[in-house]
Amino acid sequence: MRFSLITTLLPLLALTADLTTATGPTKKQLANRSKKFSIGIVLYPGFEPLDVIGPFEIMQSLSAYYPMTISFIASKTGPISSRAPPHVMVPGQPPVDLSHLIAIDLYATHTFTTAPPLDILLIPGGMGGMVLVENNDTSIEQFITSRYNQLEYLLSVCTGSMSLARAGVLKRKRATTNKSFWPWVMQFGGKVKWVPTARWTQDGKIWTSSGVAAGMDMTYAFLSHVYGTEQLNSIMNAIEYAPHTDPSWDPFSVVWNVPGANQGGPIESCVKPAGL
Amino acid sequence: MRFSLITTLLPLLALTADLTTATGPTKKQLANRSKKFSIGIVLYPGFEPLDVIGPFEIMQSLSAYYPMTISFIASKTGPISSRAPPHVMVPGQPPVDLSHLIAIDLYATHTFTTAPPLDILLIPGGMGGMVLVENNDTSIEQFITSRYNQLEYLLSVCTGSMSLARAGVLKRKRATTNKSFWPWVMQFGGKVKWVPTARWTQDGKIWTSSGVAAGMDMTYAFLSHVYGTEQLNSIMNAIEYAPHTDPSWDPFSVVWNVPGANQGGPIESCVKPAGL
Repeated sequence: MRFSLITTLLPLLALTADLTTATGPTKKQLANRSKKFSIGIVLYPGFEPLDVIGPFEIMQSLSAYYPMTISFIASKTGPISSRAPPHVMVPGQPPVDLSHLIAIDLYATHTFTTAPPLDILLIPGGMGGMVLVENNDTSIEQFITSRYNQLEYLLSVCTGSMSLARAGVLKRKRATTNKSFWPWVMQFGGKVKWVPTARWTQDGKIWTSSGVAAGMDMTYAFLSHVYGTEQLNSIMNAIEYAPHTDPSWDPFSVVWNVPGANQGGPIESCVKPAGL
Repeated sequence: MRFSLITTLLPLLALTADLTTATGPTKKQLANRSKKFSIGIVLYPGFEPLDVIGPFEIMQSLSAYYPMTISFIASKTGPISSRAPPHVMVPGQPPVDLSHLIAIDLYATHTFTTAPPLDILLIPGGMGGMVLVENNDTSIEQFITSRYNQLEYLLSVCTGSMSLARAGVLKRKRATTNKSFWPWVMQFGGKVKWVPTARWTQDGKIWTSSGVAAGMDMTYAFLSHVYGTEQLNSIMNAIEYAPHTDPSWDPFSVVWNVPGANQGGPIESCVKPAGL
């Protein structure tokens, strides 16, 4: 497709938008546009910055049009560093020291005890997850379990699905994770239907994405599901992100030699502005 | 190209890596791998979160291999919100109130006065830039001017190039910006060689990217230039981001009707894992 076609396409797109309005958005999507969603994002030392800010960027932009609130939730309020403390990554090996990494702080507004009622909860991944496991820290898993029934949606990015598996909410559900950490995540939640080749998965109210940047593609698909695409597509084009829209596009599952990965899928993904 | 080819390709890639090591990386790139780069990122109320964290995500991952330090620099230290204060966007129109937007805080570690010597300075975009202009706040531009000669590289993401233009460092240089804010940015720096269709630009030591997400593609190209791709490509595949590598891929310039935009370029960008 060539730019010269776009001038021809744009009126069609406008028409499509009209048709969409006529045949959809669904009643649920229309209702969601005026519902004030309470969103919670969990933080812990060593969270992956883009796991949080990739999805948040799209949510913040959309909050100009649809009402929502955000809570950043951790064991304690205040600054939480994206640098994980030293930790044993491989049993028997010396601890991995990450003190030479540059890092950011994000601010936790609530604790697991003081967090408000939530409609949407997102669990990011990150090296810090290994430290929590090493220390037998299950505070995130306990929080997920305590809030699960009240949640309308539960999302994870990257290795965040490890906490969903540990919490037991992924039993008999499809889920995925960062393909470069696949063997590590597989030790959790044997009853999970892990999908080796997936940019993201949806099973009921649970959405899980592959590694880091895949969280942005899952978030585009998730917000399209919740609100429809009218405002969302103009936002994606304003932040100039052309999302991957095929959940089965996952060449990284092959790059990282994930057992059972689909070797036959396309290695390339032709991306273009949202709505075109 | 199909996954089934990758198993064939991977040895070739390893070989390519060897050859790269033989014919390149350059002496400069090898020297850079042991040089401790001092990186500064400017913050201000209403910065765009992904303008900062997109590039930072890649830098933090690379800091596990190559030494670097990071400073977040603003008018005052402490938390800086991604929500811009109410401001007049169009002269004569009532102020735009963004108080309903969800937001994050990032922590400024230094002020424009206390910032350490810097090798690399990155200026993010965001709605807050309009407030600075409205208030005739030139603190960022003064900081850029005062540090410009000592900088090895000056980067901007999205509307951050507005501050470079206001500072006067873009005179007779190629630069770009967010295509949905093109008319607003064009009022600054008439002597700038603005490039209407560009995912990013490089002119001497100045790198500028198009809107928000384009900062990640510029950062991949920039870090490839500084360090070479051996470690960088494995990092891109670990964070599962397939970067756009063609600086002339910019369908958003057409979507937003930028005057002089290349109407003939491809609307689709076939992306694939770095190095494949």
